[in-house]
Amino acid sequence: MDRGLDREAIEEVYLATLGFSGWQLGNSSAIAAEEAGRPGVSTVRVENACASGGFALRLAVDAVSSGRRNLVLVVGLEKMTDVSNARRRYWLGVSGDTEWERLAGLTFAGVYGLMAARYESEYGPVREALSAVAVKNHAHGALNPNAHFQKLITREQANSGPMVAAPLGLYDCCPVSDGAAALLVARTDRARQWTDTPVYVVGSGAGSDHLAVQERENLTRLDASRQAADEAFRNAPFDRKRLDLLEVHDCFTIAELLALEDLRIAPRGSAGRLTLSGATRLGGRLPVNPDGGLKAKGHPIGATGVSQAYEVFLQLRGQAGARQVRGAQRALTHNVGGSGATAAVHVFSAG
Amino acid sequence: MDRGLDREAIEEVYLATLGFSGWQLGNSSAIAAEEAGRPGVSTVRVENACASGGFALRLAVDAVSSGRRNLVLVVGLEKMTDVSNARRRYWLGVSGDTEWERLAGLTFAGVYGLMAARYESEYGPVREALSAVAVKNHAHGALNPNAHFQKLITREQANSGPMVAAPLGLYDCCPVSDGAAALLVARTDRARQWTDTPVYVVGSGAGSDHLAVQERENLTRLDASRQAADEAFRNAPFDRKRLDLLEVHDCFTIAELLALEDLRIAPRGSAGRLTLSGATRLGGRLPVNPDGGLKAKGHPIGATGVSQAYEVFLQLRGQAGARQVRGAQRALTHNVGGSGATAAVHVFSAG
Repeated sequence: MDRGLDREAIEEVYLATLGFSGWQLGNSSAIAAEEAGRPGVSTVRVENACASGGFALRLAVDAVSSGRRNLVLVVGLEKMTDVSNARRRYWLGVSGDTEWERLAGLTFAGVYGLMAARYESEYGPVREALSAVAVKNHAHGALNPNAHFQKLITREQANSGPMVAAPLGLYDCCPVSDGAAALLVARTDRARQWTDTPVYVVGSGAGSDHLAVQERENLTRLDASRQAADEAFRNAPFDRKRLDLLEVHDCFTIAELLALEDLRIAPRGSAGRLTLSGATRLGGRLPVNPDGGLKAKGHPIGATGVSQAYEVFLQLRGQAGARQVRGAQRALTHNVGGSGATAAVHVFSAG
Repeated sequence: MDRGLDREAIEEVYLATLGFSGWQLGNSSAIAAEEAGRPGVSTVRVENACASGGFALRLAVDAVSSGRRNLVLVVGLEKMTDVSNARRRYWLGVSGDTEWERLAGLTFAGVYGLMAARYESEYGPVREALSAVAVKNHAHGALNPNAHFQKLITREQANSGPMVAAPLGLYDCCPVSDGAAALLVARTDRARQWTDTPVYVVGSGAGSDHLAVQERENLTRLDASRQAADEAFRNAPFDRKRLDLLEVHDCFTIAELLALEDLRIAPRGSAGRLTLSGATRLGGRLPVNPDGGLKAKGHPIGATGVSQAYEVFLQLRGQAGARQVRGAQRALTHNVGGSGATAAVHVFSAG
């Protein structure tokens, strides 16, 4: 049972947003506190591109686990559709390396296209696996009333989408979405004041990498993700083998394959096979992105990392409706900034 | 004695920047970690407009005081002069309320002009006191080789500067500056590993307020500053009466007067008299902004809050050269976001 909340209990607010379209680029955290009914409390905007939400959650977890705060609010949001296509193109690029990528014309689809091409050259054809990610996440999104896309797509559609950045086609790319999500993060010993069924954050990790992909050691893994996952599991009370579901950052279908390998769920080069086996579908051994993922739920930049944790919250409380992973007790969220320059991973437990 | 630093000891990086001019709006914290020689570590951008630096310091202090980290790096920076005047005008406005202020044409000088006008209507003429702030901070800046303005101005100049936003003239406004500053924040019990003369952060507070000034209760005080100061002193081992120097957020001269009152250094309506008495000059009873303040040192947005702490670091180690406050042992920094929607206050001690 949840017992409701007196807003006065909120001691701090963390806002995750890129400020897409420039609606309120500076000081927007003050609006978050104000709209939460708590003008006056300490509030701060956290921005790490598409990983802003994951890092806001990380700071909130620190604030309560250190005992400094009892209850803090995390808000993630992005309004992406209220600018023209031309301006939107600018805003979609601002989280990539400006000097070596954005100003040279390399887009995010382009960067992930390079990763996918390199992945194929190292591990062989990946088209069917990419399409399997898209088909699966659309199928999951169809079960999520808050998903941007709630319709199924076929393998044939996914295979033959218009090319965006070879080898990635239209169905390999997440959409441009508006969205928001919020979390209340409480001290473990206080959570039951507000609910009988809290969800516990039992591991938090973060990493970074060179902003420009040209500086990185490798194009087929994101070291920031690896580092974040390793840190998150260092303190977690269970190993990744015991996870019941994952929320991973599938901004492009190739990113879901890389995530499974960077999180050390699948050996390198094998995430495609795992996906094609059906293991990562709802009903499979380890459902991945039951809410539809960025691919189908949508990717409102600052909201994404927060909404991943919201999905885990629903799943571990058994409240995910048609997309419920049966008996889910342990879950992970994986949130990537840009093309992997920053990443945050959290591990959750039902009790 | 300082013992130098092995970069490998840096466990986390906090970057404070607005991203002025849009050079790298998203994910710039990754560059901060990379340039610090630590690509891979957890890094996050913190943005609360002109208070970004103060809030980055606050999060860094939390990270070490909770025992989670031993040593973290805080970087503040802004490059403000590499865009045209027209674009700069846009960027100078983005931290004010967009809906009710910026799009209606109200600038920051305009907002602080309103505050100054209201202050005069409540407490009487303030022109001489505003000029005294400007003259003092220019005099201090002239002693600071890193100040933007290193020249004295006269009372007559300050009184007769071209009008910017009545009653504020040119010499009431801080300049547009490029700049950067950095701090290493260590756990108290580890600091002596790197230096024999650490400076201790003994209090940290933050507050917020409605972003739009029209929603606030009062135009002659910043409640965010009051809240931040009260929180900072709640845990500090000494009272504000024992401070030896202050670094306050004087983006406009009126802001220094408001700060002295909001920090409860001076009773309301009396900060002008205190300033005119000479008490806040170097050599006075309580020097304010010995580095020149935002007015003369400059105000590179994300760098400001960090550089205030750097000045305190120099002062409490007796290394501030010609502007040294004799025997300084206890100090405070006060950093305001926008027109007071966010504020962070830190209290420091020499030992």
